[in-house]
Amino acid sequence: MNASSTPSRRRVVIIGCGFGGLEAAKALSTEAVDITLIDRTNHHLFQPLLYQVATAGLTAPAISGPIRHILRKEMARGNLTVLLGEVKTIDAQARQVTLAGGEQVPYDELIVAAGATHSYFGNDQWAAHAPGLKTLADAFDIRRRVLTAFERAELSSDPVEREQCLTFAVIGAGPTGVEMAGTMVEIARHTLSREFRNIDSRRARVVLIEGAPRVLGAFPEDLSQRAREQLVDLGVEVLTGAQVTDIGPTGLSYQTRAKTADGSERLESHRLPTRTIVWAAGVAGSPLGRELARSTGCNLDRAGRVLVQPDLSLAGHPEIQVVGDLASAKSYLDPQAPTPVPGVSPAAKQMGRRAAKNLLHRMKGRETKPFVYADYGSLATIGRKAAIAMVDMPVFGRVKFSGFSAWLFWLFVHIYFLIGFRNRLFVMWDWAWAYFTAQRNARVVPDAPTPSTLPEHGGSRQAA
Amino acid sequence: MNASSTPSRRRVVIIGCGFGGLEAAKALSTEAVDITLIDRTNHHLFQPLLYQVATAGLTAPAISGPIRHILRKEMARGNLTVLLGEVKTIDAQARQVTLAGGEQVPYDELIVAAGATHSYFGNDQWAAHAPGLKTLADAFDIRRRVLTAFERAELSSDPVEREQCLTFAVIGAGPTGVEMAGTMVEIARHTLSREFRNIDSRRARVVLIEGAPRVLGAFPEDLSQRAREQLVDLGVEVLTGAQVTDIGPTGLSYQTRAKTADGSERLESHRLPTRTIVWAAGVAGSPLGRELARSTGCNLDRAGRVLVQPDLSLAGHPEIQVVGDLASAKSYLDPQAPTPVPGVSPAAKQMGRRAAKNLLHRMKGRETKPFVYADYGSLATIGRKAAIAMVDMPVFGRVKFSGFSAWLFWLFVHIYFLIGFRNRLFVMWDWAWAYFTAQRNARVVPDAPTPSTLPEHGGSRQAA
Repeated sequence: MNASSTPSRRRVVIIGCGFGGLEAAKALSTEAVDITLIDRTNHHLFQPLLYQVATAGLTAPAISGPIRHILRKEMARGNLTVLLGEVKTIDAQARQVTLAGGEQVPYDELIVAAGATHSYFGNDQWAAHAPGLKTLADAFDIRRRVLTAFERAELSSDPVEREQCLTFAVIGAGPTGVEMAGTMVEIARHTLSREFRNIDSRRARVVLIEGAPRVLGAFPEDLSQRAREQLVDLGVEVLTGAQVTDIGPTGLSYQTRAKTADGSERLESHRLPTRTIVWAAGVAGSPLGRELARSTGCNLDRAGRVLVQPDLSLAGHPEIQVVGDLASAKSYLDPQAPTPVPGVSPAAKQMGRRAAKNLLHRMKGRETKPFVYADYGSLATIGRKAAIAMVDMPVFGRVKFSGFSAWLFWLFVHIYFLIGFRNRLFVMWDWAWAYFTAQRNARVVPDAPTPSTLPEHGGSRQAA
Repeated sequence: MNASSTPSRRRVVIIGCGFGGLEAAKALSTEAVDITLIDRTNHHLFQPLLYQVATAGLTAPAISGPIRHILRKEMARGNLTVLLGEVKTIDAQARQVTLAGGEQVPYDELIVAAGATHSYFGNDQWAAHAPGLKTLADAFDIRRRVLTAFERAELSSDPVEREQCLTFAVIGAGPTGVEMAGTMVEIARHTLSREFRNIDSRRARVVLIEGAPRVLGAFPEDLSQRAREQLVDLGVEVLTGAQVTDIGPTGLSYQTRAKTADGSERLESHRLPTRTIVWAAGVAGSPLGRELARSTGCNLDRAGRVLVQPDLSLAGHPEIQVVGDLASAKSYLDPQAPTPVPGVSPAAKQMGRRAAKNLLHRMKGRETKPFVYADYGSLATIGRKAAIAMVDMPVFGRVKFSGFSAWLFWLFVHIYFLIGFRNRLFVMWDWAWAYFTAQRNARVVPDAPTPSTLPEHGGSRQAA
C-alpha cells in the first residue's frame, strides 16, 4: 500500500486521531518506525469546545483541522501515512486491521485510540429525538434543532406546539450537559432576544435533568453546589434525582422519588413537553472495543471500555495498546493503590505519549512502564461568566474557585490548548465578539428543512 | 398570525431573502406597510463567494448571516415578520400563499424573489453524480466530494480508480464553472501538495467542459480569450465546443465536432474517467415560476423564468412583482430598445428596490416606472491572481483589463459588498492567509463517509 516505506521498519498502526492517537503519532514520528494513522474523518477535533459549534458560537473549522495539515511536519519526515477509513475488524492473530472498503493494513504494533460514543442504555430508539454530542455532525444536528425550534414556534399558531418548541431539555448534568444548558439559555435570553415578533425567545425554558443527586458529580460537593447556583442564576431549571423513562417526538417522561407522609418513598411520574432534547447522559466505548474483545479475549467494563494492563497493553498481546476514552485505565502514581483515569483530554494525551514510549521500550528490549496520570485539576464551564475550577498549584495545593474568575481561567486554558490549530487568534476574536455583543456568529443552518415539514425532528438531513 | 400587526396596513409578502428580496424588505421597512418575509433557510447568502465555501477557502458563516440578525434594525421598527418556511402554492385570486406545513399567509402585495436552481436539461439522473452550486448545502457536498476524492486515491491500490479519483470535471464555463475549475487546481497544486504519500496531488487533472465555442461567453471575445489563457496557465484543461452526453459514477461522455478530410464535420465521442463532477452548466427559475404561471397565467421563458412587465409586475396582476433570478426582465434605459437583464446580484438588488418603489407608487395612486438596470460592468475571477474585468468608468468609458490587476479589483469589490455582514474583516484575513500560505482554512468534512464505503459518491449524507 505504501510505496515509499522501508519494509524492514516496524509497522505501527494507530486507529483514531483524537487527542490520544494524535499524541502517539507525533511522538513516534521522530522514530525509526513506519506509522499508519487511520481515522473515520479527515479532521482532528478539539472536542472540549464542540458545544460551542452546537450552539452556533464557533464555526467547525475554528475547533478542528485537517489531520494532514496538523501533521504536515511529521509527514514531511516520510514515515507517516494518514488514511481516511473506518476500521471494521482487527485480526490479532494475523496482525492486521481491515477497513470498511476491504483494504487490509498489516501491523507489528497497534495503538487503538478509537474513543467513545454515546450510549442510550439500551433505548436506542431515543437517539432520533435526543441526539448526543460527539462529532461535528452531531453538533450541526443540534444547532439545526435548537435554531429551528424557535423558528417553528414563531410560525405556529398552536399554543401547545409553541410551548413544546420553546422548551429545551438536556439530559445528563456532566460537563457537556451543563455547558449545553447554560449556553442554550444564553441563546434564548440574549442572542435571539427581540428577533422574533410572535414569540418572546426570552421566555424559553431550558431544563437540565440529572439522575444523580447533584450536577457535575465528578467535582467535590461544594463546587457542585456552586455550579448548580450558577446554572439557576443563568435561568436553567435544574432537576436532580430525576430518571428519564421515555423520550418521544413531543416530550419526555421522568420519575422522581418523593417522601410520603409516613416517611417512606414513592416514585412520582412527570411529563415534560419539549421538541428539542440533547442527550448528554451516557458514554460508551467505541464498537472497536467489542471487536478487540472478540479478537483477543480482553475484558470490557460495563461501559464497553477495554480493561487494559497497567502499561496500557492487552494481556497476552503486548503489541496492542489502548489509549484515551476507549481505555478503562488506572493511574499507578501509587502502585499499591491505583486510581481510575478520568475520560478527559489531558488523560488521553498522556496515555498516547505513554503508549508511544512503551512501544519504543519494547522495541529496544526494555521494560514498559505503568501509566501515571498527571492530574492538574478539573474545570467545567457553565455559561457566560460562570464556571467552576479545581486546580493543583505548586505552593497552594488544591485550589477551588468558581464564578467569573473560574470562567476566565477556563477561557485561558482552552484558548491556550487550541495552540497548534492555525486560528486560535480567530477563535479568541470570535469569542470576544460573542461575549461583548451576545451575538453568535455561526447561527447559520445551511440546509434548514422547513420546520413545518419536520413534525418530529426526524429528518435525516444534516445541517451545518 | 401576527399579534402585533396593525390590521389596516397593507400586507406585503416577500418570498425569498436573496439579494432581491432582502433589498425589497429593507426598502419597505421604513414605510407604513406590514411585511412578511418568507425564506426556506434561516440565512441570507452572499452567493458570489459560495464557490469559496465549496473549495474550503471560507466557512459558511463568513459568507452568510441569519436573516433575523441582518434585518434586526428593520425588525425593531415593528412592521417586519420573518418566517422560515417553504412556499408551496400561490393563490393569486384569494391573494394568499400556502407554506409546506399548511400555514396560510394572506397578502395585498406580493414580491416573488425565489431565485434560480440548476437545470440538467431533462437529465435529472445526472444530479447524483454532478451536483450544482446554489446553496450552502451544495457547497458542503462539493467540498466533501473534492476532498474525499484525494483521500480515496491515497487509499486505493487500483490504478484505474486512482486516475478516476484524481480527475475533476467542471461542466459549464460560465463564472461559477471558471472559478471552481481555477480554485480546484489551486487545491491540488498548492494546498494539498506534499500532504499525501501514495499519490502526488499536483498530478490531478482539472477539466473544464463547455458546449459553446468559448469560456465566459457573456464577456467580449478578447476578455474571454484572456480568461482561457489564464485558466490554462493555472493548469486547467479547457475543452470548448464539447457537448456532455452522459454522466455516471465513474466518468462522463462528451462529443466534439471534428473536420474530416473532405471539409465536412463529424461528431467524435470521448470519455473522461472521473469521480468528481461539478455541474455549472444550466440555470432554471425556481419551481415557484411554474406555480405563478399556474395561478396567474403568466408566461415563462425557456429556462422557466417569469416574463414580467416593464415595471416587474405580472400582466393583469399589478399586485404581484417578480425580481431577481426568477424574473426574465428587460432594462428600459432606452424604452425603444430594451435589453435583457443579466442574472447577477447587482441586477437582483436593483430589481428589489424598484419593486419596493413601484409598490409604494401604486399605493399612492401614482404610476409605476419601468425597470432600468444600472450596469457598472462585469467581473469574473478565475483563480489565484487571475480574473477579467470590464468596468464603466466616468471619464474613460468602458475599460477592460485582466490578470492580477483584475483579480485585485475583484477582491476589493467583493469584500466591499460583504459589508453589512458582520465579519468582512475576518473574511479579508482568512483570504489574505489563504493567499499567502496557499492554505485553505475550512478543509474540514465533519461527517466524511469513508471513501471506500461510498463507491458512487451517491450517499445522501451531507458534509459541512
